[in-house]
Amino acid sequence: MKMIVSIKRHVGAKKNPILAAILATTLLGNLSVSAMGNAKEKKAGKVGKATMADVLKASSASDWHALNPENTMYLEMEKGRVIIVLAPEFAPNNVANIKALVREGYFDGLAIIRSQDNYVAQWGDPHDEDNQKREIKTAKQKVAAEFTVPYVKAFPFTRLKDLDGYAPEVGHVNGFAAGRDPKSKTTWLSHCYSAVGVARGNEADSGNGSSLYVVTGHAPRQLDRNITVVGRVVQGMELLSSLPRGTGALGFYEKAEQRSAIKSIRMASEVSETERSHLESLRTDTPTFQALIEAQRNRGGDWYKVAAGHIDLCNVPLPVRPTKN
Amino acid sequence: MKMIVSIKRHVGAKKNPILAAILATTLLGNLSVSAMGNAKEKKAGKVGKATMADVLKASSASDWHALNPENTMYLEMEKGRVIIVLAPEFAPNNVANIKALVREGYFDGLAIIRSQDNYVAQWGDPHDEDNQKREIKTAKQKVAAEFTVPYVKAFPFTRLKDLDGYAPEVGHVNGFAAGRDPKSKTTWLSHCYSAVGVARGNEADSGNGSSLYVVTGHAPRQLDRNITVVGRVVQGMELLSSLPRGTGALGFYEKAEQRSAIKSIRMASEVSETERSHLESLRTDTPTFQALIEAQRNRGGDWYKVAAGHIDLCNVPLPVRPTKN
Repeated sequence: MKMIVSIKRHVGAKKNPILAAILATTLLGNLSVSAMGNAKEKKAGKVGKATMADVLKASSASDWHALNPENTMYLEMEKGRVIIVLAPEFAPNNVANIKALVREGYFDGLAIIRSQDNYVAQWGDPHDEDNQKREIKTAKQKVAAEFTVPYVKAFPFTRLKDLDGYAPEVGHVNGFAAGRDPKSKTTWLSHCYSAVGVARGNEADSGNGSSLYVVTGHAPRQLDRNITVVGRVVQGMELLSSLPRGTGALGFYEKAEQRSAIKSIRMASEVSETERSHLESLRTDTPTFQALIEAQRNRGGDWYKVAAGHIDLCNVPLPVRPTKN
Repeated sequence: MKMIVSIKRHVGAKKNPILAAILATTLLGNLSVSAMGNAKEKKAGKVGKATMADVLKASSASDWHALNPENTMYLEMEKGRVIIVLAPEFAPNNVANIKALVREGYFDGLAIIRSQDNYVAQWGDPHDEDNQKREIKTAKQKVAAEFTVPYVKAFPFTRLKDLDGYAPEVGHVNGFAAGRDPKSKTTWLSHCYSAVGVARGNEADSGNGSSLYVVTGHAPRQLDRNITVVGRVVQGMELLSSLPRGTGALGFYEKAEQRSAIKSIRMASEVSETERSHLESLRTDTPTFQALIEAQRNRGGDWYKVAAGHIDLCNVPLPVRPTKN
């Protein structure tokens, strides 16, 4: 019987950062600091190895920072709220235009127009090709592409030591997975699960933020440097990833009734305090984050038999949790 | 207006292999063989670069092989059929036990018991911990783990030249993504999107195939060599990936009515000819498959501005299409 119980608990890792963070606060395990973050040591035994839950439990208040309401967007759907954090440091013009669209209520009443399995969900105006097309009032019709930006010294890049085939260097900046190229001194957000970007046509500057997509499958990293990434979903991802797939080409919905409505998109800063979701995310420029990466690179706990000794950029968890108070 | 049209067509690649294969048969583009498969050439321009659709269109009948009904399993749900190809060459004992379970009707009337966002869906007996537990009649209660197997010379390994952090060598065997280690002379199936494995508890041999999982998110490659992978979903993946996520720990459903029923699981060989899905998959030991990888490594077409020059093992498409006749 015990075997059956443990089958239910199989496939070790918790990939839902919120769940993981909440679990972390309820686990009884104690953290041996000396066992943390020894990145070069391949796991020989399990003794003393910290799990992600251990690392989060041992984190201090200063390891977390509250989401900035000026850069946090609420996408309200019938089934709940999707929370998106924008990254103006990586796409200043596109983020500014998205905020302008949000402020003018552009997205309110529009819909999720596409869900392609193992790829992306996309939202925008279902009527963008007919005479019911929604007009853009105050935002710009055209915004230059921001596929890469120059290194921003003010924002520390926490480099991941692990091999990556898609970029010369990968790591994290301000809670986002990113690549960078020391030759061109450019950096960009990577297409990991939950990354949000600006849909475009064949012309590089044909997107303006009025149609956005989110990665819902295995990281399509070939898109990196080909399209403007503006942020990531930090909560409610399952509302977008579990949508029925569209049956048209590229996963577009073929009938109006197949689309999910967008009730509204609002900036958190324009929502009353009582209606806000108060969240904080783990800072990515701390020893705690390094310890978390190591805990995932060589898993602790009783379940794993072989340590991977490696972690892919898009497998690094970026925990978010409710703020306490 | 054209811009809007092309926004709708954005985010270039078709990741759904079936859709891609079908599209390929309807596209008018012609394939320049000389433009195919030059793996070392970084794309300077777009002229002459084959797309995946071009490669599939140019494929010959001998590039494909029909699914073997003895190793093909139909998972029948309310919304349709999920087709799973088993890999007895990688997990002979576990596959044999799954077939025994299927033959005794073990799965009929059971359910999808778990859906964890960006990780796995899992099916089996919701009552495995109470006295309504379904009995296993003819299959084995316990099957040894098959996390890796020795090199099988009869099955060619098409090695991917691209860097991989999780395995010394990666590539494809018989239509499956796999890793291998030349030192230990072992090989194993990789946890790419749609991989199917045997749920287990903390003990390596605590799985027997009565509960199976499928990868529904970014490849959790840290599971490689830690759990027995038995095959992959080749059609109907969206029926599992778009399930509502479970709200219990690890994505388990908390209430019976949240679970999706499994009407039955049958081996294709035990289903009448008229009820079978006649499919064929692209062989992975051919120049056509190499050309397809190259087309995805450095994308052709008008949309991409920068070629990745790299492809991740789990981003290599494994096309499946209806057989013609």
